[in-house]
Amino acid sequence: MEQKQREKLLEARAWIQKELDTCINFWLKNGMDREHGGVYTCLDRKGEIYSTDKSVWMQGRCGWIFAWLCAVYGKKEEWLAASKSCLDFMEKCCINPEADGRMYFTVTADGKPLRQRRYFYSEAFYAMANAEYYGVTGEKECLERAKRAYEIYWDLWHGAPDPTGLGPKTIPETRTGRSFGLPMIYLNVTSVMMRTDPESKALYEARAQQCVDEIFRYNYHPELKCVLENVGPDGEARTEFTEGRIVNPGHDIEGVWFLLEHAKRTGDPELVKKAEQIFDWAIHAGWDEEYGGLLYFVDCLGKPPEAYEHDMKLWWPHDEILISSLMLYRDTGKDEYLDWFYKTLEYCKAHFSDPEYGEWYGYLRRDGLPTMPSTKGSTFKGPFHLPRMLVNVDCMLGELTK
Amino acid sequence: MEQKQREKLLEARAWIQKELDTCINFWLKNGMDREHGGVYTCLDRKGEIYSTDKSVWMQGRCGWIFAWLCAVYGKKEEWLAASKSCLDFMEKCCINPEADGRMYFTVTADGKPLRQRRYFYSEAFYAMANAEYYGVTGEKECLERAKRAYEIYWDLWHGAPDPTGLGPKTIPETRTGRSFGLPMIYLNVTSVMMRTDPESKALYEARAQQCVDEIFRYNYHPELKCVLENVGPDGEARTEFTEGRIVNPGHDIEGVWFLLEHAKRTGDPELVKKAEQIFDWAIHAGWDEEYGGLLYFVDCLGKPPEAYEHDMKLWWPHDEILISSLMLYRDTGKDEYLDWFYKTLEYCKAHFSDPEYGEWYGYLRRDGLPTMPSTKGSTFKGPFHLPRMLVNVDCMLGELTK
Repeated sequence: MEQKQREKLLEARAWIQKELDTCINFWLKNGMDREHGGVYTCLDRKGEIYSTDKSVWMQGRCGWIFAWLCAVYGKKEEWLAASKSCLDFMEKCCINPEADGRMYFTVTADGKPLRQRRYFYSEAFYAMANAEYYGVTGEKECLERAKRAYEIYWDLWHGAPDPTGLGPKTIPETRTGRSFGLPMIYLNVTSVMMRTDPESKALYEARAQQCVDEIFRYNYHPELKCVLENVGPDGEARTEFTEGRIVNPGHDIEGVWFLLEHAKRTGDPELVKKAEQIFDWAIHAGWDEEYGGLLYFVDCLGKPPEAYEHDMKLWWPHDEILISSLMLYRDTGKDEYLDWFYKTLEYCKAHFSDPEYGEWYGYLRRDGLPTMPSTKGSTFKGPFHLPRMLVNVDCMLGELTK
Repeated sequence: MEQKQREKLLEARAWIQKELDTCINFWLKNGMDREHGGVYTCLDRKGEIYSTDKSVWMQGRCGWIFAWLCAVYGKKEEWLAASKSCLDFMEKCCINPEADGRMYFTVTADGKPLRQRRYFYSEAFYAMANAEYYGVTGEKECLERAKRAYEIYWDLWHGAPDPTGLGPKTIPETRTGRSFGLPMIYLNVTSVMMRTDPESKALYEARAQQCVDEIFRYNYHPELKCVLENVGPDGEARTEFTEGRIVNPGHDIEGVWFLLEHAKRTGDPELVKKAEQIFDWAIHAGWDEEYGGLLYFVDCLGKPPEAYEHDMKLWWPHDEILISSLMLYRDTGKDEYLDWFYKTLEYCKAHFSDPEYGEWYGYLRRDGLPTMPSTKGSTFKGPFHLPRMLVNVDCMLGELTK
């Protein structure tokens, strides 16, 4: 590597490390609930809590990130305590006692249940958090919890009756289908399970392969040059209604690095090529040539997406571009991916980062200014995508500049 | 009235009438489904259908508007047929046969059920459409249908068990409450019932009064200078979580003219003053001093609203400002309301109206440009708010310039 290129990477790494430090401190200082346990994530620009309702996804994601920080950088009491606080809060307040291990979607500050949803992503993040905590501490009970939730997700995904009694959102006699999120998130959970519980590696490898196969069998659509968020039961593209045409470029690009990790582990160069293809489709469909940044939703035929917020710039897809572009550069050596990394990094520095109060704005208008009053967290934004990106990128930049 | 002021009103009226003509033709030409009946409302800028799924709200709203056009301007075969087509489509395809008159939320182009929701606004618009059609044609069966749906809404609102079996969204042991939409929409449906079915006037007057009383008893909050969308069971403001702090200024301003109609009919000058108060709070909280136009949601304490789209400009709140400001001017004579009428009219001409293809853009970014690709309709936008405003304003301008 040229000296000049190396210096640029080192400079990026210094910024990333500083941003990680700020981000972690923002959540430790402002988010952790020292009274009831768990984390508040509805924080405004300055870190003040603007809603005390708690997101169960975020309890799991926060529980995971602080355990993972220990796994990557070495144990710190404060990190371990933050993770444990979320784990305990979930155990005590976020599992629906009448629905066989199914978890709530939101609860009050003191843990009273607010909402049960049909989706089972609460269970996914609970599994990740418990598995990672087991990996760091060796607490067997956490591994058992993770495995239980991991099986609940798998079973519900494959048609097991839902103990909550909530049926599908769409009347199944009229329309059913497959969503990209199910194999994509499961692939990510599986990689955490595999790393922390190597004893069951064979099971995890089989599950991971099945996720990868399903993504390509059903949601990957070369004739439309995209990955479709929602397809028919046999993977059919349904182009007559909007739901069937939605492309979520950030989701696709997030999937890219899950696929690259799988390709690297299993030694599959063909899969690297296909992941490149997904990245190329998504970044070209989603990058806003007029204002910069990645659009939230696009339509595979260029028609209007129905979600009002489709042209907004959310923080997390940009985190995913940074991870996937750098990983693609690392694994293919192609400069175009490094270019996307730098281009996105510049956009994030200029628009998402907030040197004054720390953490990133979550929600920008198409023109790149935050919606006002701006926020640093919400039911869907907490200490997850940003610190996960910062850690991944820090590690990759470390490898690349070695 | 001064000659100059009268001329300005007449000029506005000419523009309104032209816009009404264009709007009606846009939907008749592009929306009506001549194959299966009913209306498609997911239309793009040019009027092309971008999604064939049908909104049940929109079948009712479209069925209502075309019957109401006949009631106001005299019967036209094409209008009556459009209304009837929506009525028939609803009768055939939009009522859930397993849920005792409850209606679906969306169905496919050919009327297969897609989604059942817990909310009963489909029933509200079905009642309005059938009542108005009865008013124009004297078809008794339509009045009976309207009355049935009108009672279903009332009963569900007041705690009757829901035959769909869908429970409340929020776990009621933890949190229940009252939403402003329930009395507000019912007040509007009631005014249509009362006008078309004068025989039952006493019942409708009692129900209307109850809606008005509930709005002021529960959702009207002088100490916060706003109407809250969601309050506790006794009207308590719940300021610790975002849902409890949401103000929807367009909704409040829509309510203003429902209240003014009630005040005029019952001869209640105090109610006019309170409606003025609601308008003043909402327009000052919601009008965007930087870019113009009315924000979609604001927070009563100035904290961040959680909906991503909170700072967007939707077409319908602007329709409601035009009706309410002109009606307030008519009923109070205060120039400040005429100023709001003109200010909003200018904004709508500059940003929502599309002289090239007709109808209004539905969804603008905060800066007043449409989200791209732009749309003229969606699951929530069809021939309703815009033509309803154009007719109301046309009639009021007629009175004012007589």
